[in-house]
Amino acid sequence: MKIAILSAAHLHADSYAAALRDLAGVTLSVLWDEDVTRGQEKAAEYDTGFEPDLDAALNECDAVIICSENIRHRELTERAAAAGKHALCEKPLATTVEDARAMIETCAKAGALLGTAFPVRHSGSAFQMRDAISSGALGSVLMIRGANRGTNPGGWFVDPDLSGGGAVTDHTVHIADLIRFVTGEEITSVYAEADTHFYPDLGVEDCGLLMMGLSGGGFASLDPSWSRPNQAYPAWGDVRMQLTGTGGVATFDYTAQHVTLYANARVRAAQLPWGDDGDQLMVADFVAAVRENRPPLASGEDGLRAVEVVAAAYESLRTGRSVEV
Amino acid sequence: MKIAILSAAHLHADSYAAALRDLAGVTLSVLWDEDVTRGQEKAAEYDTGFEPDLDAALNECDAVIICSENIRHRELTERAAAAGKHALCEKPLATTVEDARAMIETCAKAGALLGTAFPVRHSGSAFQMRDAISSGALGSVLMIRGANRGTNPGGWFVDPDLSGGGAVTDHTVHIADLIRFVTGEEITSVYAEADTHFYPDLGVEDCGLLMMGLSGGGFASLDPSWSRPNQAYPAWGDVRMQLTGTGGVATFDYTAQHVTLYANARVRAAQLPWGDDGDQLMVADFVAAVRENRPPLASGEDGLRAVEVVAAAYESLRTGRSVEV
Repeated sequence: MKIAILSAAHLHADSYAAALRDLAGVTLSVLWDEDVTRGQEKAAEYDTGFEPDLDAALNECDAVIICSENIRHRELTERAAAAGKHALCEKPLATTVEDARAMIETCAKAGALLGTAFPVRHSGSAFQMRDAISSGALGSVLMIRGANRGTNPGGWFVDPDLSGGGAVTDHTVHIADLIRFVTGEEITSVYAEADTHFYPDLGVEDCGLLMMGLSGGGFASLDPSWSRPNQAYPAWGDVRMQLTGTGGVATFDYTAQHVTLYANARVRAAQLPWGDDGDQLMVADFVAAVRENRPPLASGEDGLRAVEVVAAAYESLRTGRSVEV
Repeated sequence: MKIAILSAAHLHADSYAAALRDLAGVTLSVLWDEDVTRGQEKAAEYDTGFEPDLDAALNECDAVIICSENIRHRELTERAAAAGKHALCEKPLATTVEDARAMIETCAKAGALLGTAFPVRHSGSAFQMRDAISSGALGSVLMIRGANRGTNPGGWFVDPDLSGGGAVTDHTVHIADLIRFVTGEEITSVYAEADTHFYPDLGVEDCGLLMMGLSGGGFASLDPSWSRPNQAYPAWGDVRMQLTGTGGVATFDYTAQHVTLYANARVRAAQLPWGDDGDQLMVADFVAAVRENRPPLASGEDGLRAVEVVAAAYESLRTGRSVEV
């Protein structure tokens, strides 16, 4: 199977390229990128060809992984669907509910599969949390406390015209999706606070708090902030969830399996993950989904549900009220 | 009680000064330092007076804490003893067995107490290890694995004319003393390897391994290296011991109680200790020893025993053989 990567604007393209290399019978056929310099550089790094023409790139693959700026997800997904290609799209699926719905509809009409890059739900720990719920071991869900903190990613992530928003856009969807995945419940309401506390001149919010209602009657909180010190803290980490049910309590730490690296050449401490690699498991699932013609573990609909939560959070920020999803 | 600090060449002077401030009825009366610039600076930092004349400084105190370069411990201790002042001396007590013995003898003749700065044995965890041995819970000691790793301290620590040696001098004595303290046994033989692997141009060894025989028939190993990356790693940490007895196993981590700080202004990760403060407990014990006219918890003899281990290690390096202590 030939898979193209469309844009390396998102750093995760690096690990998806590595994951593709590890899969038998799969080739990273080509990298397309709007930015020719970045595209050529990354293509060389990924040991594949660079193709500046999108149609030509789509002709050279069976499916695509989209790692562009958030705002371009819709266009690239629809171009891929028009060419009859399946797509795994970086999260958030889109910057508006309208775009996400359109992407799902277009793919469905074209008979193309659509997946959302939610690597967190692919880890063994997410499945164990889900099993703890579905087996009844935790009883019914009363409260969830989630966090997806990190450092300010900078670049296009802080340009709202390309990202669609700041920390709330960037860091809400993993936990929103995880809540849905492990509980089987839907998020029914969102009340949000957000502000720009850590980088005063930033054009987007860098911190926030969400309070969410769940369809089972419980509630959840989420800290989706870029509150980790940018120079000193490892870039990755802090995707966590604590779940309290009527029958017990469980905690989840997506990046618990890591080695902390202190290297003079980097100075800044780094976390080197080991154990379950969500990116690798997710790319393997997408390839299997294409082979088996079934939806990926995290579908376009799953992506849409998370986008709805983000949209509700911004609506809450505008109105100062809790917003139904 | 008035206590003078003699020299701030050793960074630990900072925490000893802080410890003195916390003790009721105790005054840090004066700081003497051979280096006038450093002395004035540190005296201001410690909120005490700087005294460039050693005799004048000794006149202004009941006891001293010596934080000079290793090579000057003997002279300063003997000057203090001649003035009838008790001394707590930074570790290693001396750079040769001869010097350490002379210091003990001089202090004894003058009726002055002599303590060695072994803060590690003052922590609650060291006492618990000792209790686990003395209560019989661990049976008899079969094996001990110790480590005292850290970053290269630089400065006079790497000038053998002032330090007396490198990592083996700097990092052998805490664990050697801890082994004696918790087991009640003596170290009877030392085989050592050491080299300069991490800083090729260094005039002293920066890594090593010691294999030690114990009077009870067991044996112990120790890594006394400066093997931690100098730019990235927290300066402190890694004073550890694992003890295997016929009745069980116990582990000791002197710096386990810490917060890891990632601060942009520092970049380099830092460990902020909490819980038992060995320095504070040690200074308090020294003050109590003076008040009660009894030896400090770690005496001059304890300091000598550790110096003997260091000397045996260097003798082993010279001869390539195991050396009896």
